[in-house]
Amino acid sequence: MTTNYEKAQEYSQQHADRFQEDLFELLRIPSLSGDPGHADDVTRAAEWLAEHLQSLGIENARVMPTAGLPVVYGEWLGAGDDKPTVLVYGHYDVVPAEIEDGWDAPPFEPVVKDGKIFARGATDNKGQLFIHIKALESYLRTSGKAPVNLKFLIEGEEEIASPNLTPFIKEHQDLLKADLCVISDTSMRAIEEPAITHSLRGMTYIEIEVEGPKEDLHSGLWGGAAHNPALALVEIIGKLYNTDNTIAVPGFYDDVVPLTDAEREMIAKTDLSEDQYKATTGVPAIWGDENYTIRERLSARPTLDINGFWSGWTGPGPKTIIPQKAGAKLSSRLVGNQDPEKIFSLMKDYIESITPETVNVKIELLTTGLPALIPFDIPVMQAAVRAYEKGWGHSPVFTRGGGSIPVVADIANVLDIPVVMMGYGLDSDGLHSPNEHYRIEMFQRGIKTAIIYLDELAQLSQL
Amino acid sequence: MTTNYEKAQEYSQQHADRFQEDLFELLRIPSLSGDPGHADDVTRAAEWLAEHLQSLGIENARVMPTAGLPVVYGEWLGAGDDKPTVLVYGHYDVVPAEIEDGWDAPPFEPVVKDGKIFARGATDNKGQLFIHIKALESYLRTSGKAPVNLKFLIEGEEEIASPNLTPFIKEHQDLLKADLCVISDTSMRAIEEPAITHSLRGMTYIEIEVEGPKEDLHSGLWGGAAHNPALALVEIIGKLYNTDNTIAVPGFYDDVVPLTDAEREMIAKTDLSEDQYKATTGVPAIWGDENYTIRERLSARPTLDINGFWSGWTGPGPKTIIPQKAGAKLSSRLVGNQDPEKIFSLMKDYIESITPETVNVKIELLTTGLPALIPFDIPVMQAAVRAYEKGWGHSPVFTRGGGSIPVVADIANVLDIPVVMMGYGLDSDGLHSPNEHYRIEMFQRGIKTAIIYLDELAQLSQL
Repeated sequence: MTTNYEKAQEYSQQHADRFQEDLFELLRIPSLSGDPGHADDVTRAAEWLAEHLQSLGIENARVMPTAGLPVVYGEWLGAGDDKPTVLVYGHYDVVPAEIEDGWDAPPFEPVVKDGKIFARGATDNKGQLFIHIKALESYLRTSGKAPVNLKFLIEGEEEIASPNLTPFIKEHQDLLKADLCVISDTSMRAIEEPAITHSLRGMTYIEIEVEGPKEDLHSGLWGGAAHNPALALVEIIGKLYNTDNTIAVPGFYDDVVPLTDAEREMIAKTDLSEDQYKATTGVPAIWGDENYTIRERLSARPTLDINGFWSGWTGPGPKTIIPQKAGAKLSSRLVGNQDPEKIFSLMKDYIESITPETVNVKIELLTTGLPALIPFDIPVMQAAVRAYEKGWGHSPVFTRGGGSIPVVADIANVLDIPVVMMGYGLDSDGLHSPNEHYRIEMFQRGIKTAIIYLDELAQLSQL
Repeated sequence: MTTNYEKAQEYSQQHADRFQEDLFELLRIPSLSGDPGHADDVTRAAEWLAEHLQSLGIENARVMPTAGLPVVYGEWLGAGDDKPTVLVYGHYDVVPAEIEDGWDAPPFEPVVKDGKIFARGATDNKGQLFIHIKALESYLRTSGKAPVNLKFLIEGEEEIASPNLTPFIKEHQDLLKADLCVISDTSMRAIEEPAITHSLRGMTYIEIEVEGPKEDLHSGLWGGAAHNPALALVEIIGKLYNTDNTIAVPGFYDDVVPLTDAEREMIAKTDLSEDQYKATTGVPAIWGDENYTIRERLSARPTLDINGFWSGWTGPGPKTIIPQKAGAKLSSRLVGNQDPEKIFSLMKDYIESITPETVNVKIELLTTGLPALIPFDIPVMQAAVRAYEKGWGHSPVFTRGGGSIPVVADIANVLDIPVVMMGYGLDSDGLHSPNEHYRIEMFQRGIKTAIIYLDELAQLSQL
């Protein structure tokens, strides 16, 4: 007997060309969120999506306002209360693209070449978002129903740091209530190496300013009895680190969830060698906490980096001053369960406590982002593993992202649900670059996998 | 019986107005060394001075070329071989001045107001230089001879850091041979507190650049295993200092001449209180090596200051990078007998030895200047004390300048003679500022003192 998901898969294969045509329509809309000159295009893309969802039978699909660019929302709840509800998050906005940037063809006139769709947004995120829309279409057009309930939350401001998404989620918590969230907005190293990102780092970003004299001083007339503010800042920053390259702020590591043996084994699968790290970054030697592997340092451990600093004379030649002030930008990448606000408070207290009376210090919080850490042994994660095995043909690795996607942590925290990041892109897709593209094979295998995932979720006894 | 110096002093009083008129002629020439548009004025000032010296009977006075702006040289050797020869150094060039800068009157049309001559160069250095010319004139026009031999070395590039003076001195060592050099280009705090500067600090000025990755790195993707170049620079700079605020570069203090009790007593006469230092500079608290008083730290001890540093993102808001590189400008004020080139070598070796293998470092020497330290118990210094006592009416203090006047060290070293800095300016003269002025009283008392000094030198049995 042919199962519902097999029928849906078959449908997706039969309609592959038309799915691609549908995607092309969306790709043709230059929905640049960062450019007010494209506000009409953004609205047009949102409306197109809402209408497209409606055309699949999601009659309630609609464009919903935010304080900024609108969200597209739609839900299909036909599976019934006893079935899980999946919230699909994606975004319809894109970063700028001009053919002059080095594109081989106009970035908003999608073309296929060598099995790849070339267009701005092809992989990030219109193509990957479409996978979930087309998975649902494939069920609805074959069995008339999907195995689980689905809600779509598609925003238009992801590329400008989602300033209005968290307020939107908070305001519509009931509407968005679900058992898990699926996001396809990440990538894998190679086609046969699918990856599920189960952790992202958060952030606490501060700016420090140290002030000494009331103005720049002549270093000959006054040097020797004034604490140089640049030196004071050097001393302060120096005390933020231990000699083993760990961070010396008291309490900094208190909330870090220790790595389990299983997690370390998983991370080892994507570890980098010293030579690989050196070749890619160009550093003469690696650095860091020697108790952890390179990949662990890059993804599972918190950091503290100087992003910039400045003081005094920086032009050519000598100028003999004691600068009036010195400043630095410092940011910490955080891991589960560190709280960015608490880390700021710990940093501020510590820096103030180590600042000598010879200078004054100001510490400002520039931005924060929550880390996200979703255990990979929970049922919805293991269901994703089975989906990849059956749909993609390979068992996925669970990876930790070293960067931050604040929306992931916000969804996980505000809605209190696990987020499953099933990225269907390739590292080489060129997102944000000229000639961004998306392999048709990835698109089609993605739909196939997404179809199975919904079936696997339906079979879970409890979430 | 009226002595020769008394006759000369009497002459200087009788001709005070005419001396002032002569000075005005020189002040009217806008001899800006830093502005090629005034090259003709610079030449005119040099020629005027040479002619003026000739008019006093110094027939060999002449303008001599350098690789830059010319030197005026003249000598009167009528005192005989058994008498000392005094080299008078001064400069006829000035810094720019425009009435729009805030002058009450045109800066090159000298006027007298409240007993002060207002004009660019009035105190720095045309007025102070004139004191020695008029002291010699006063002798020659009364006794027909001076008690000592005199040579004048008057340069035209002091305000642009004397790039051609040391080569000139080296080339003309025989011509410039003398027993001592007198320079009047410094100032006293108050009229009744004459000061002789017997020490100036030298300098070693370096630039350090630390490089890590081949380009700025995304701090999320790569942070944790790359040694942040800004942090590496912070660590390097931190190791240049000991916890007692002394300098940790091995060998740095080896050649520092220890302060004698007599020198410390002398320095104590012009010491600053913590409150005075704080009020003037605006620092919240003083800093430095607690084994030394504030004035000692500012003038008799070497320093190491950060003059500037830079790395990464310094604009508004956050940017999450690991910077590709970081740089700093560092300068050390040196004291006798530290050698700037040796200090550079010590710094370079030490910095390279403490630079970790995780980054690359470049250390560049930007500039050097020799320190100058002339003991104040030598006969020519003590003769200056007596000259102030008799001519000025007050015993001078010996002070150490915290800044650098490289020419002083160059004259002292190349010609191997003591330099006596008898400054006849006031701290409040406003040199390099709008409304620069010179008190007529300082001018006249200066000539009187300079006349006696020559007499005191003539009485020294040996130099």
